[in-house]
Amino acid sequence: MLRGVDYYPEHWPEELLDEDLDRICRMGANTIRIGEFAWHLMEPTEGEYHFDFFDRVIEAAKKRGLTIIFGTPTATPPAWLAHNYNIASVSINGQQRSFGGRHTASLSSPDYLKAAKKIVRNLAQHYARESAIIAWQIDNELGHEGADVCWSHHSKKAFQHWLEQRYNSIEELNQRWGTIFWSQTYNNFQEIPLPAPTITTHNPTLRLEWARFCSWRIEEFCRLQTQWIKDYIPNAICMHDFPGGGLYKTVDYSRTAKHIDKVGYNNYPVWGGQMTPIPPHKIAFDLDYIRGLKKSSFWITEAIMGAQGHDITGYLPRPGQAAMWSVQALARGADGLSYFRYRGATKGAEQFCYGIINPDNIEGRRFLEVRDVFSFFKKNEKVFSEKISAPVAIIADFDSRMAFQIQQQAKHLDVVQEMMKWHRECHSRNIMTDVIASDADFSGYQLIIVPHHIIYSPTVCHRLQRAAQAGAHVLVTCRSLVKDQDNNLVFAQSLPLHSQDWLGIRVEETESVAETNAFCLRTPVGNNSLTNLLLPSPVSAGVLRDMLSVEPGTQVLYEYDDPFFPEYAAFTHRPLGKGATWYLGTIPGPQLRSVIIDTLLNSIGFTGIDSPDGVEIIKRGTHQVIINHCPVTQEVLGISIPPYGFQIMEE
Amino acid sequence: MLRGVDYYPEHWPEELLDEDLDRICRMGANTIRIGEFAWHLMEPTEGEYHFDFFDRVIEAAKKRGLTIIFGTPTATPPAWLAHNYNIASVSINGQQRSFGGRHTASLSSPDYLKAAKKIVRNLAQHYARESAIIAWQIDNELGHEGADVCWSHHSKKAFQHWLEQRYNSIEELNQRWGTIFWSQTYNNFQEIPLPAPTITTHNPTLRLEWARFCSWRIEEFCRLQTQWIKDYIPNAICMHDFPGGGLYKTVDYSRTAKHIDKVGYNNYPVWGGQMTPIPPHKIAFDLDYIRGLKKSSFWITEAIMGAQGHDITGYLPRPGQAAMWSVQALARGADGLSYFRYRGATKGAEQFCYGIINPDNIEGRRFLEVRDVFSFFKKNEKVFSEKISAPVAIIADFDSRMAFQIQQQAKHLDVVQEMMKWHRECHSRNIMTDVIASDADFSGYQLIIVPHHIIYSPTVCHRLQRAAQAGAHVLVTCRSLVKDQDNNLVFAQSLPLHSQDWLGIRVEETESVAETNAFCLRTPVGNNSLTNLLLPSPVSAGVLRDMLSVEPGTQVLYEYDDPFFPEYAAFTHRPLGKGATWYLGTIPGPQLRSVIIDTLLNSIGFTGIDSPDGVEIIKRGTHQVIINHCPVTQEVLGISIPPYGFQIMEE
Amino acid sequence: MLRGVDYYPEHWPEELLDEDLDRICRMGANTIRIGEFAWHLMEPTEGEYHFDFFDRVIEAAKKRGLTIIFGTPTATPPAWLAHNYNIASVSINGQQRSFGGRHTASLSSPDYLKAAKKIVRNLAQHYARESAIIAWQIDNELGHEGADVCWSHHSKKAFQHWLEQRYNSIEELNQRWGTIFWSQTYNNFQEIPLPAPTITTHNPTLRLEWARFCSWRIEEFCRLQTQWIKDYIPNAICMHDFPGGGLYKTVDYSRTAKHIDKVGYNNYPVWGGQMTPIPPHKIAFDLDYIRGLKKSSFWITEAIMGAQGHDITGYLPRPGQAAMWSVQALARGADGLSYFRYRGATKGAEQFCYGIINPDNIEGRRFLEVRDVFSFFKKNEKVFSEKISAPVAIIADFDSRMAFQIQQQAKHLDVVQEMMKWHRECHSRNIMTDVIASDADFSGYQLIIVPHHIIYSPTVCHRLQRAAQAGAHVLVTCRSLVKDQDNNLVFAQSLPLHSQDWLGIRVEETESVAETNAFCLRTPVGNNSLTNLLLPSPVSAGVLRDMLSVEPGTQVLYEYDDPFFPEYAAFTHRPLGKGATWYLGTIPGPQLRSVIIDTLLNSIGFTGIDSPDGVEIIKRGTHQVIINHCPVTQEVLGISIPPYGFQIMEE
Repeated sequence: MLRGVDYYPEHWPEELLDEDLDRICRMGANTIRIGEFAWHLMEPTEGEYHFDFFDRVIEAAKKRGLTIIFGTPTATPPAWLAHNYNIASVSINGQQRSFGGRHTASLSSPDYLKAAKKIVRNLAQHYARESAIIAWQIDNELGHEGADVCWSHHSKKAFQHWLEQRYNSIEELNQRWGTIFWSQTYNNFQEIPLPAPTITTHNPTLRLEWARFCSWRIEEFCRLQTQWIKDYIPNAICMHDFPGGGLYKTVDYSRTAKHIDKVGYNNYPVWGGQMTPIPPHKIAFDLDYIRGLKKSSFWITEAIMGAQGHDITGYLPRPGQAAMWSVQALARGADGLSYFRYRGATKGAEQFCYGIINPDNIEGRRFLEVRDVFSFFKKNEKVFSEKISAPVAIIADFDSRMAFQIQQQAKHLDVVQEMMKWHRECHSRNIMTDVIASDADFSGYQLIIVPHHIIYSPTVCHRLQRAAQAGAHVLVTCRSLVKDQDNNLVFAQSLPLHSQDWLGIRVEETESVAETNAFCLRTPVGNNSLTNLLLPSPVSAGVLRDMLSVEPGTQVLYEYDDPFFPEYAAFTHRPLGKGATWYLGTIPGPQLRSVIIDTLLNSIGFTGIDSPDGVEIIKRGTHQVIINHCPVTQEVLGISIPPYGFQIMEE
Repeated sequence: MLRGVDYYPEHWPEELLDEDLDRICRMGANTIRIGEFAWHLMEPTEGEYHFDFFDRVIEAAKKRGLTIIFGTPTATPPAWLAHNYNIASVSINGQQRSFGGRHTASLSSPDYLKAAKKIVRNLAQHYARESAIIAWQIDNELGHEGADVCWSHHSKKAFQHWLEQRYNSIEELNQRWGTIFWSQTYNNFQEIPLPAPTITTHNPTLRLEWARFCSWRIEEFCRLQTQWIKDYIPNAICMHDFPGGGLYKTVDYSRTAKHIDKVGYNNYPVWGGQMTPIPPHKIAFDLDYIRGLKKSSFWITEAIMGAQGHDITGYLPRPGQAAMWSVQALARGADGLSYFRYRGATKGAEQFCYGIINPDNIEGRRFLEVRDVFSFFKKNEKVFSEKISAPVAIIADFDSRMAFQIQQQAKHLDVVQEMMKWHRECHSRNIMTDVIASDADFSGYQLIIVPHHIIYSPTVCHRLQRAAQAGAHVLVTCRSLVKDQDNNLVFAQSLPLHSQDWLGIRVEETESVAETNAFCLRTPVGNNSLTNLLLPSPVSAGVLRDMLSVEPGTQVLYEYDDPFFPEYAAFTHRPLGKGATWYLGTIPGPQLRSVIIDTLLNSIGFTGIDSPDGVEIIKRGTHQVIINHCPVTQEVLGISIPPYGFQIMEE
Repeated sequence: MLRGVDYYPEHWPEELLDEDLDRICRMGANTIRIGEFAWHLMEPTEGEYHFDFFDRVIEAAKKRGLTIIFGTPTATPPAWLAHNYNIASVSINGQQRSFGGRHTASLSSPDYLKAAKKIVRNLAQHYARESAIIAWQIDNELGHEGADVCWSHHSKKAFQHWLEQRYNSIEELNQRWGTIFWSQTYNNFQEIPLPAPTITTHNPTLRLEWARFCSWRIEEFCRLQTQWIKDYIPNAICMHDFPGGGLYKTVDYSRTAKHIDKVGYNNYPVWGGQMTPIPPHKIAFDLDYIRGLKKSSFWITEAIMGAQGHDITGYLPRPGQAAMWSVQALARGADGLSYFRYRGATKGAEQFCYGIINPDNIEGRRFLEVRDVFSFFKKNEKVFSEKISAPVAIIADFDSRMAFQIQQQAKHLDVVQEMMKWHRECHSRNIMTDVIASDADFSGYQLIIVPHHIIYSPTVCHRLQRAAQAGAHVLVTCRSLVKDQDNNLVFAQSLPLHSQDWLGIRVEETESVAETNAFCLRTPVGNNSLTNLLLPSPVSAGVLRDMLSVEPGTQVLYEYDDPFFPEYAAFTHRPLGKGATWYLGTIPGPQLRSVIIDTLLNSIGFTGIDSPDGVEIIKRGTHQVIINHCPVTQEVLGISIPPYGFQIMEE
């Protein structure tokens, strides 16, 4: 089991190397993660490669039995490259990003790509036979901090070229995009603009294709690097360390993950000036989403120990709290973890990203905390290698997410927050949930939540129906199945597209409102027979509403309490095979959301486990890992868990 | 009477044409509006003109007795033009607008102007003898969405050239602008900058001249297009469809309207994510302003039926509500109306601008609503051709509005909102009000409200005096007559400029405050004899105050209750000929504003009609049109009007 | 004693000159300030110099016994220069500043510098023997309104060149900056970027060096101009008129002031739309800071009389209020004062900066107010030439201030506000305080407050210790002495750097929080013996906290009331020689701050003087100047001071 520290030996005088590695061993680590960001050290001038420094580091590590994760340094091209070539990425306002941060190169710059290829291939060639390297990390946090989108002329050319590959002809593109609208018909691919600031707004197909291109750019870069490495090291484990906030980026993590062997995740439950850490259920959501990328265990490549931030530091994790977060991550599917970072930097932009050791170089509180938690991991290695199985899945569809980023439709609609809210309902009941892409395997789930799946895909619809036939309950929420794959409405078709039969409803009217608490829903008279639960009435909802007429055989659980639209349903249920489909036409308030989840769980015969707020119980194989996120002792399942404590129990 | 639909036949397979036109006839329409935005279809490559598609559309329309409004397509230059020439407009931050929206060309680009001239002239030549075309629409919504101002080098050159025409010499310009200040003396016109971002702020004359140029640019474009059309079709009715929000744009609608034969207005009482529709009095204000442009009836060129928005849709008009808005527009001076749009687009940026028919192509609720309201129009055609006569005028002076946009002077001063607030007082009393330009005819009005007319014009002052002499009451509000035509203060003159005699006051001191409710006004002791009304005291005001000393013969109605300025008046009255002038030195709070209007109406012997909130009674010739904007039934003038209902009564 | 008016004779017809100067004399003025901004008048085309206009002005002034302050016109380069050369400065978003405001030239533009040198040298040469010129003003408000930072390629080149001078080699730079981090190693100085927008954030050393360069650029420009003048007029008094807000600019006023003979200050207690004037203690802080620049008397070069603002005017000083502010400024160290401006401009960007005379040219209220206050000054000339001696100093360290601007570390940390809060505590007790640079003389102060002195300097630390040894009490506040001169953390050193001995504490952990009221402090059991004051407990603090362990001999006055960190002190005291050091590890709430100042004053045996809120008592030599900032009469020291009144008393 990977117990690592992120070590940047190049940041320190080489005479510290031995002492540092000795201490790393004393902590209980078995791996160091090195190499990322060190391009200039490896190639100080163009074409001149030096790996001797890392040779010495690896030698010293091997001597102590430490294995290596080696990162390619492409996230930070050297100054000479930025100075001699035009590689800068460009922000939405047309300004070139200055050299000086990271990820400031355009992934569409031919010069950058050429240089990246050369450094990665030279690196791989040099270490092709180095058995101590157990994994290769591709770049670092691709697409993070605004690096997902670049508006340079390189990007424009690459986008046009990419489109040219995707369409048989410019005529096909014009027809599918509907460029006749506003006289945007293109005579050739070179006329196609980026959706940069214009007057009003761009063609929605252009915008979705741009989003797909931006993601493809990153997926492809990841794929290329993997290939460059495997050309020399066919059995290399290629890994990428994904940053947080992936569902707010113009990147499809799930497709990116297809190009690598192992998912890494940089897990920052608190960062940069947050008053308090991210709440437990949101950390859990992120971990469940990361686990879902390949539906498989992953590594925490950056776990925190100290306060973190660039210009603002903020919250200092309390004694034991960072260790607790580490255990949470392992319980939720990580099978290895590396702390960021061995010792805090004295220079450069991350001086206030505290590590295990402070710059004062004293073995303080955090050193001891790491030693203890590594020892705990070692003792429980078996538990953390058990399989996780979740009865619930939430579908995160890239195209639909982008479609709502492009056309939000309702002022307070945030489809990622909606996923999180559904997840939280399960989390608070201590029910394991997978967050998965729409092309992931749906089998085995008893409840599948499909929030705001606006882009219709016949395959996905077919697979959802099959899952329902086989016994799953499928909840589809408002504004689903409205658009085709080109992000367009469909002529002469009612909504939801091609799905009135299996969902049992038709959307007659839709409106969005600028309030979360905008209208009342009521249960129809005498209609609560479906469940043993008494549905409360009235309840409130808001943001958006599809007004539904229902097909025979569909049961209305809630309808709108509105004098102008008295005939329309808001929440419906329809048996299908061994399972059922449910359609929710609006964004529920907290009470209604809880009721819906209770109703659905009741339908699948599932009950969760009660725990106090801030305490989670994670099922991992035959074990339960109990974690107390609270600053006070909590009682749960008959035992006491101290502040920021954790405990493993046999079921 | 024009009953139209905005039809975009080019957005649909041509095989739908006959079926669509049949249905348009079944709705009760007699006109289709076509052509706008279809440049590429008419000129797919440079210099190659094709009008056969529209030939077929017009043929099919004529067969059914439908007439045509044809729009020039200049709002959306084709991609080849944007790609082959440098025509892009530039935003305030120096960024070129991307191709992909609309109005992204600089109206100062010679290449754009040349291409526009060619397409419009070819179009006019082609349809010179087409009698079915009852009107030509110039462009679409000129100056909308930020297209009123362009910071390109084209604009700079054109601005410098325009200045060169306006001034006898650079010396004259230097002298009038006062460029000696901050060493800005220009040695030639080529040195004159645009008022783009600088350190601190630009010369106010430069800024006012720039605003005038921006407006001229649009006026001139409108004038040119009219001329291009009339060169081939001397009797053409040229119309422009003005967008909403005109008083917040750097365009003088009133001057623009001089170049056309008929005013069109795109009337959107709800748009893009507004929680609720614009309140009735504001819709009314906009209609009264549009009517005032030529003091004549106008067309609603885009009336709404469904929810509207680009990326946010928002409020769905309740059944009957959109029809009610149509009736309001007709009652307030429209003599024709066309719905936007026949069928909602499936592709392009306006998918969520719902039309009469949804993309599902079903004849739903809105189809029936249009049919009914068209039938109502037909029945009442005579009523809607009667003349509107308003006893009250509000003066909207372009130069003064720009002067306050340039130098706001007080944080909460919004001179357009001030116009609207005065208008609302009249509207709530169901008194018709014209909103007119300062060069419009003032005769016939009993009350003329002149809000914040900061730029002094001898002509306007003379005409106001003459109106008062003839019996009108003229209310002038604070910060009026402060600057000359060059937006400068005047040496050795007291304020208000050249107007102490007829207004009977002098402004001794002025201050602005950052609160709307900042100071108290009181009536002077024993001074309420003017009116039979008891003036309440104290009352509150804020934002700005002119401190007034009064001439003999001027009556003080309110003075400031301030220990530091005990001697100054705030609101005064002075008889003049058969009428009177009034000066209000501050921005009144709601109570005071209402009192002032009551006092003025009392002085002209006018009383309004009471109606519940949300119900308006519009006088049109000998009829009263009652309109209920409320979602509940309202009683008024002894009758019941259902939710969103309307009724015409003989007086 | 200087009693001046800022006169811009070039703004008016020359025939007004005699009448204006006569009136200026009648006001009681003895000086006019002229010349600044009049470049084009002096050099209408390149290389053609004309000084005849100012010759005539000076002649007319001399005839009346008026002396002259002559300003160099470099703040506003003429249009021909901006048009013929590339001199524009560039804003952070990469946009060139438009000609049209002021300070729009890059101080790094070689063409601008060349032209500035020529105009200043020609001017100095021309007036070399003009005895009426009592002082030369260098430019105007250097670095104001965003002119402190320029992102042009000129700046980039100059910055790289400046760095090249400061470092022995690029290797030294790389080593000291830690450019190994994120692969930012530079192979030569031409590769070094400006810290313009990038992804995430720049190297902190780069950023501090950039701030130093920006300040140096201005210091150097000031130095050069002084030299250009003194080359011709060796005995010239060179003065610069500093604008307000200096502690929020990237300029070190104190270093700039070293290059001039006399400090000028443009004192605007109300400006541009502020609802009410700046509170008295903040005006006082600014004056105390300006006095501290050279620890010497200064001139008010722009005192206000009327309302002020560019586009927003705002608050009108009440009768007597502007005079009162003038007296405050003199009492706090000015020994001369000039009103901005003689007569308000009718044209140009400052029409709403009201002067003594309005454009109506009438001798109104403000004329009389100036005459009276000038007469008061004359009568009390002796008082205002007495020395000010302050028992308290607050240290404003440029490097530390910049370091917090670069890395704020805590969301609500504003180190300038912190200085002001400490100052206010003294001000409210009517204790004089100097605000001085860290290289100023510390001797003579009984209490030295050192807020957030993050950049460690051995010299400063040594001098603070010496001051304490000699009897001073030194208060150091949190996050002091954390970084080295390169803005970096220091390897293998505990905090505060090299200061555990004399401060008697060690910082064990640090965190920032996003609240000002975030944690409780309590007094340790039985530990209040130090002072006779009873320390209240608990008290609240926030924003940031250093958790302190203490050395033997250090007394803990407050500790954190936190279950996770029970062992750490928050506020400590340690005797040192005849004085003591105090360390405050957090940002105190209002109660605690007041308690701390009481405790410190008690320790130095000092008590203040009570006065009502808004009334200040300023000690000037053997006199007390009492000033009432309130709109009502106040009683103090047994006498009555009317609204906005002032009075001088013998002690």
